[in-house]
Amino acid sequence: MALSDLMAVQRNEDGIAAVAGILKQRFGERFQTGQSIREQHGHTTTYIPNQVPDGVVFPETTAEVQEIVRACGDHRVPVIAFGVGSSLEGHVNAPGGGISLDTSRMNRILAVNAEDLDCTVEPGVTREDLNRHLRDTGLFFPIDPGANASLGGMAATRASGTNAVRYGTMRESVLSLTAVMADGETVTTGKRAKKSAAGYDLTRLLVGSEGTLGIITALTLRLQGIPQAISGGVCPFPTLEAACQAVIATIQMGIPVARIELVNGLQMRAMKNYSKLDYSESPCLFLEFHGSEASVAEQAESFGMIAEEQGGGPFLWTSVAEERAKLWDARHNAYWASLTLRPGAKGLSTDVCVPISRLAQCVAETEEDIAEMGLIAPIVGHAGDGNFHTLVLMDPDNPAEIAKVEAFVARLNMRAIAMDGTCTGEHGIGQGKAGFLQHELGHGVDVMRTIKQALDPLNILNPGKILPA
Amino acid sequence: MALSDLMAVQRNEDGIAAVAGILKQRFGERFQTGQSIREQHGHTTTYIPNQVPDGVVFPETTAEVQEIVRACGDHRVPVIAFGVGSSLEGHVNAPGGGISLDTSRMNRILAVNAEDLDCTVEPGVTREDLNRHLRDTGLFFPIDPGANASLGGMAATRASGTNAVRYGTMRESVLSLTAVMADGETVTTGKRAKKSAAGYDLTRLLVGSEGTLGIITALTLRLQGIPQAISGGVCPFPTLEAACQAVIATIQMGIPVARIELVNGLQMRAMKNYSKLDYSESPCLFLEFHGSEASVAEQAESFGMIAEEQGGGPFLWTSVAEERAKLWDARHNAYWASLTLRPGAKGLSTDVCVPISRLAQCVAETEEDIAEMGLIAPIVGHAGDGNFHTLVLMDPDNPAEIAKVEAFVARLNMRAIAMDGTCTGEHGIGQGKAGFLQHELGHGVDVMRTIKQALDPLNILNPGKILPA
Repeated sequence: MALSDLMAVQRNEDGIAAVAGILKQRFGERFQTGQSIREQHGHTTTYIPNQVPDGVVFPETTAEVQEIVRACGDHRVPVIAFGVGSSLEGHVNAPGGGISLDTSRMNRILAVNAEDLDCTVEPGVTREDLNRHLRDTGLFFPIDPGANASLGGMAATRASGTNAVRYGTMRESVLSLTAVMADGETVTTGKRAKKSAAGYDLTRLLVGSEGTLGIITALTLRLQGIPQAISGGVCPFPTLEAACQAVIATIQMGIPVARIELVNGLQMRAMKNYSKLDYSESPCLFLEFHGSEASVAEQAESFGMIAEEQGGGPFLWTSVAEERAKLWDARHNAYWASLTLRPGAKGLSTDVCVPISRLAQCVAETEEDIAEMGLIAPIVGHAGDGNFHTLVLMDPDNPAEIAKVEAFVARLNMRAIAMDGTCTGEHGIGQGKAGFLQHELGHGVDVMRTIKQALDPLNILNPGKILPA
Repeated sequence: MALSDLMAVQRNEDGIAAVAGILKQRFGERFQTGQSIREQHGHTTTYIPNQVPDGVVFPETTAEVQEIVRACGDHRVPVIAFGVGSSLEGHVNAPGGGISLDTSRMNRILAVNAEDLDCTVEPGVTREDLNRHLRDTGLFFPIDPGANASLGGMAATRASGTNAVRYGTMRESVLSLTAVMADGETVTTGKRAKKSAAGYDLTRLLVGSEGTLGIITALTLRLQGIPQAISGGVCPFPTLEAACQAVIATIQMGIPVARIELVNGLQMRAMKNYSKLDYSESPCLFLEFHGSEASVAEQAESFGMIAEEQGGGPFLWTSVAEERAKLWDARHNAYWASLTLRPGAKGLSTDVCVPISRLAQCVAETEEDIAEMGLIAPIVGHAGDGNFHTLVLMDPDNPAEIAKVEAFVARLNMRAIAMDGTCTGEHGIGQGKAGFLQHELGHGVDVMRTIKQALDPLNILNPGKILPA
């Protein structure tokens, strides 16, 4: 069955018209129905076609979110939470139309409890906003998915990124959250205690639920102390396999790397050109170490020895902030750099994650498949977690090419699942991976559907995502 | 309303008789109905009265657990998963009778993937069994609630303990699990990938659900590398407040302590006598550091300076394994040592957890309350997490005393909640804390109830726990 059929949602024209009228009256200019703003809010970043909502509303308070959800519930109209639109699996698409609930005006930092290493923010605060705000506290928020995503969106998709190998993902970083549920009631899932055994873990249930169980209106996040010393560098390897083996050895030896990112040769070429870097075009690892001056040096030295054993190096590292910034800017821009490899093409980003011992094999088999298929698909990865992405460049108007790419993606996802891994380490399910979720978790998907039906019986919260119809 | 009314479950005599007949026929000697084994399985460790199940069954496989759950479902009979019975809030009590499902024969270690730092075990494996098995791998399982609990029980109650300040709790340590749901179907909640964004977090939903949503039949757990060096020691302080301030400073400075345990003067006296220790009777911190030789020494030195600033010390520490073992045996036996302070008394262990900045105040107000009430109630705590226990010694046959203690406990729990903390850091809700859960999470409890009803519509899985009737 095609994705579009699998995730189809019936349009409710009368309901949509009624809700549009209510919201226009209630929110005035904060409810928008222009074509371009609607398209922007159904934007998918990737090749998945845009499915526009019927209107975009900009609430400023939890009470306003409650009003909107209640209006949508009364008229059985979809309501789709929107952060900055940087998700990659069609999460903010509106397959049955409805209302996009844009959280960008809910962007207040409500509290910073420096002494407790936590803070409470509204969902529209972006991670860069937060880190700017924290600048003078000696603390930072470590989760870094690359894009300057909203923290509400990051929680909703269980985002992670380059720092997760050391600091965990949004799963570990959200202490509690406030959400508006499908019935319009608010729930606050926990207190600020560092740990709790108080009943079902509603925090973790909402983290990663992609707006299908509740709309996050506030989050309490764990912060980290800025390390005394940070150093980083790039290390080339003769082969991708050698780079993977170095990652595996680093993790198994327990070196507490803060970042260990895999970049294959093709991706290095794209990044060199895009970010004007003076690096080799062989596969590389990008690393960062956090700790005391002594520990950072010790970590770099230990890693250098591992790299050498795999025929890699030289491993050049620096503690100079500007040089590190340039390096990580290049890594963060990998997506945009890749797109230059085939101008006009759209990118499809895969996201498998496997047990670390299977990483080298999974990457090698994937590179072979790319070569055999004649695809242009650079590879980057959060290798320390066993998570890597291929960005497949494709012509979205060529059905034969789409079919070929979809077959490649299916093989990749099934390969990872067969290795006891997952089809998605951090991007989530959205519309794009519902079929693979079924392969991965089987009856677990039925349990998810039971929960969804119990908590959102009218199916108004971001319908057509995660769970196939 | 009294606890017994709040958590009451209607007995279904006909159903119980039918299931007992089925299980006797099917399991023979592996189904027991003797009074003493039944009492043992309703044992609560604490003052909560024993409510015995009608029979105890010892399955050996997931398929057998499915059979048992299906029989109980067919006849609407409670089924209560049992590990070793070390829970503290009446978790294994049978308020409506029914079947205790003892997992002690499901005690196989199914796989150790040393290269991925994970393992898969059956629920009846205890944490000491697992660590003995891992001895030669260089790995260990860090979660240590004191008792030699079963890993299934630890997951079901979201246990943590002394090491959580560094290694997290069962929430962070379970990669995935297999559970038999109320309909008798099995669910495996995830793969072995270190992170995943694959739909709702069913793993975290089951961790801490206390056997009310599913019965765990296998767990995949994260392991840790045994640190190169371990050192530990005890540091006395002039006052409990000074000890708390030292903890707060240690956490805020980011010293990666592996354990930092608070023990008040009365508890020190009990431990000294019980474990024949040569320590002071003033409030103390018990510490452990993990890392390289250099880092362990650096941590101990940094902590020593913090202690001195608070008027504490001398901080004596050792890397000798036998000396450390003696120290932590004493800490683990704190519960039994406390009971000697009032022979014949029963203990009620409280379990609040507050943001670290509120710890000193919360402990101080609690000590004052203990003194004013004339209670015997030593204090120990996983202070690095803001979690501490008072063990209130009481005569369970004296209703006036029980009322006094319940009033004390209520004030303590409400004090912690008012400080943005929780009534339970690690013991769970069980029967004992359902009323406080309502105070703590409000409408969140309704959401939990909706989930419970959706996943266990006949209310057969450990009924009368977590959610008040």
